Parts: sequence; C-alpha cells; structure tokens
Amino acid sequence: MRNLKITLQYDGTDFVGWQRQDAGVSIQGLLEDALVPIEGSAVVVHGAGRTDAGVHALAQVATFGLRGAIDPATLTRALNGVLPPAVRVTAAEEVDPGFHARFSATGKVYEYRVVNAPFVSPFLHKYTWHVPAPLDLDAMRHASRLLVGTRDFEAFQGTGSSVASTTRTVDSLDWEGGVGCDVPTVMRIAGNGFLRHMVRNIAGTLVDLGSGRWQASDLAAILDSRDRAKAGRTAPARGLFLVRVLY
Amino acid sequence: MRNLKITLQYDGTDFVGWQRQDAGVSIQGLLEDALVPIEGSAVVVHGAGRTDAGVHALAQVATFGLRGAIDPATLTRALNGVLPPAVRVTAAEEVDPGFHARFSATGKVYEYRVVNAPFVSPFLHKYTWHVPAPLDLDAMRHASRLLVGTRDFEAFQGTGSSVASTTRTVDSLDWEGGVGCDVPTVMRIAGNGFLRHMVRNIAGTLVDLGSGRWQASDLAAILDSRDRAKAGRTAPARGLFLVRVLY
Repeated sequence: MRNLKITLQYDGTDFVGWQRQDAGVSIQGLLEDALVPIEGSAVVVHGAGRTDAGVHALAQVATFGLRGAIDPATLTRALNGVLPPAVRVTAAEEVDPGFHARFSATGKVYEYRVVNAPFVSPFLHKYTWHVPAPLDLDAMRHASRLLVGTRDFEAFQGTGSSVASTTRTVDSLDWEGGVGCDVPTVMRIAGNGFLRHMVRNIAGTLVDLGSGRWQASDLAAILDSRDRAKAGRTAPARGLFLVRVLY
Repeated sequence: MRNLKITLQYDGTDFVGWQRQDAGVSIQGLLEDALVPIEGSAVVVHGAGRTDAGVHALAQVATFGLRGAIDPATLTRALNGVLPPAVRVTAAEEVDPGFHARFSATGKVYEYRVVNAPFVSPFLHKYTWHVPAPLDLDAMRHASRLLVGTRDFEAFQGTGSSVASTTRTVDSLDWEGGVGCDVPTVMRIAGNGFLRHMVRNIAGTLVDLGSGRWQASDLAAILDSRDRAKAGRTAPARGLFLVRVLY
C-alpha cells in the first residue's frame, strides 16, 4: 500500500467541517468520494485537523493509502477535476508508510481574522468576524503574551469536550492590525496542539479585552480559573483559517 | 429636493446586475427598496455604470433625490443595516443638485482579474477567470498599447447593442502579473466610457493573444475590422470589477 499526502485549501462556508457526518457535505467526505473512482474501492482519508463547520483552510494536510499506481501530479489534477471549486488540492506527494497527517504533526498555525471597522467589505464577510467598535490592539498584544508557553487551557476549551489533558503549548500569538473594511486585523497563533474551539475562544476573549471589557490581569484570572464560563465569546467560525500544519 | 451621492462595494455573484429587472435581485432594486422606509416614498437611484450580472464593484457611485433630512452618516448606517452583506455603502455625501452619478462621470476604471495557474484558490474562484495555460504577459502588454487612445471599439462591443458612436478613449491599459493560485494577474483599464461588454471582450481577446492565438498585428486587424466576430472571447463576468468612477 502506498501512502499519499495531499495539501488542501478550502472555503469552509458551505461545509459541515472536515469530518464526514451523517448529514451535510464535509471535506473528508468529498475527498473520500472523489477517491473511489480513482482507486476502484473505498479509501479512508485522515486529516491533520478536524476543522469545524464554516472554518477555512489555507493548507490542511491529509494522508491516505492507495494500491493504484497513479502519480501525485495526475492525482492532484484528477481530484481537482471532481472536487467543487471551494476545495482545491494544492500539492500531492508519496510519503513514507509511517507518516500520518494527524499523528505525525508537531504543531499547527491558525489565523483568526477580524474586520475592525464600521462595515465589512462584501468580499470579506464570509472570511472575517465583524467587530465595529474600536479595538485596543496594544492591550490585546500585551495580554496575548500571557497565553504563550505551556499552559492549562481548560478555560478556553469548548464545552462538551473530554480530552486526557487540557495542557497545550502555544509557541507564538501575535496580532497584526488591519485598515478599514478591506484589510483584516489578524491574530496568528502557533502551537503544538489546540483544544476544541480553543483558537476561537482565545480570539473572542482577546477581542472582548480589546473592547475594554477586561484587563490583562482578568485574562490571567480566566486562565487560572480553568472555567470556560469565565472566558469570553467563541468567535464565529468564518474568521478562522488553518494556515499550516508543522511536521 | 436634496441630492445624495453614495459609493458602493458589491460582490456581484448572486445578482442580476446593477439594473432593476423583472426577475432576480439587482443592486439598484435593493437600494431603491431600502430607501422606501427611509424616505417614506419611492426613490429612483441612478448608478454611474450598469454593471452586468455577476460583475463586482469596489466603488460604484449612485445618486438619488431625498426630501427627508437624514444626514449622510445615518443614511449609510441605515442602508447597511438592511442591505445584504454582499452590498455595502462605503460613503455618502450631499452634493450639488446638478451632480448625476452617470452623466457627470468623466471616466471609469475597471480591473479584470485572471488566475494564470493550474488551479484557482477557493477564495478567488468567484472573483477571477481561470486561465490554466501560461500567458505571455509581455506580448499582452505590448499589444495593449494598440488599444490606448481614441479608437473605434466596435469590434469589442457586445452584440445586440446600439449606440450612436462606438468611438471611445482608453487612457491607460496595463497588466500586472500574478503569482500562482492566490494572486491574480490583473488588467487595469481606464477610459472616458466603455461600450457594452467592452472590457470583457478586450480582456478575452488579450488573453487569447497571450495564449499564442494571435500577434499584436492581428489585434490591429481586429480593431480595424470593427467586427465583433473577429475579436476573441468575452471573458466571464466574475473576473470584472468596477474600480473607480472619475468626476
């Protein structure tokens, strides 16, 4: 069995997320369905990260086994020929049998995009969160530093999750200021792994802080509380992009 | 009667174009409908350019008369409160009674966006024309110079139009090269006025030339022929943006 690795971009707007589900169109489902005629039998596709409904990807990574001899360039063209325009395979290669999109990943980079202006450009409204009130970006940058390092992020975990440990390492967390309705303000976060809704909960909490609701000391107390109810809003899915998977 | 001028952005994907029509949603219709509760009676909105179905605008301009005393900033917020996110009013001001969005315009700037790569980013597919074969941008730039100046553009006029004169002045026509699936190659054209489908027919013809179908001398012959059948394809609406209206 050959092991294939593909890199994907997708506009998550109209999908139920990465993972195949009973109802709705998923990225995993689209890929698995597209691979059936290529392989001649069912193929299971493993993604690096299970992006939620409405979340976008600039470079999601997936792996799957193939018995067929199709070369990676032909595979890319074949998949792009049947996938909807909202999903594109940007690269494909054959990798070592032990490589796994999810378990081999050493980290991920996400961006959360906010339009901090009175209105949002029509070309960005599906790809950003609209926050009309002015944000104190310096305060958000200053507070962001509290979240860098190895921390227990339980306060930023979506409710209903159960994982063995809620400790994760955030390697970097920065904000780049945007201008007007056309250029988003972007939070970029890199880490070794993320809890369910963690990036959106961090973005929502830091936006609340930047709106004057909280100080950095409040953020420290939220982190220490390990209580989701203490943190801020879950920022909407449409502003979140999986930017890169690190191996 | 006060005279109001507004500037608009819109994602034209889901609209039948600027002009109100019997079936389908138009930008003009959306604005006129949104103004009824503000003015308390019907308002006729005049646009600078009647963009076709699927064409986008970064700065369309429209004018209309109002008896009501609403100030421009409140008008902007009120309109954006009821318009769909695909249409945004970016500015509003009261102007002299003689100013008319269409008749006062001295020129327009359009962009036509092409992705010249094996595939198109999911985030650009509604806003670009996908041309996978490599384009000779130098040849396109060289040939573009033939179209700058005061010319009879009948060969680039959409069929079925009837205007008094098909002579127009193109002030500038340039191409900026893009990179890969994410950064479009952009044709920027400025002129005193454009015939129906003229920008899309010029873009389609220059892309045909850049694909090796024609030389610059062929383009000169097409222009001289004043025959639409001699020119190239009409590039798809989704790549066209009204960028600016000049007054």
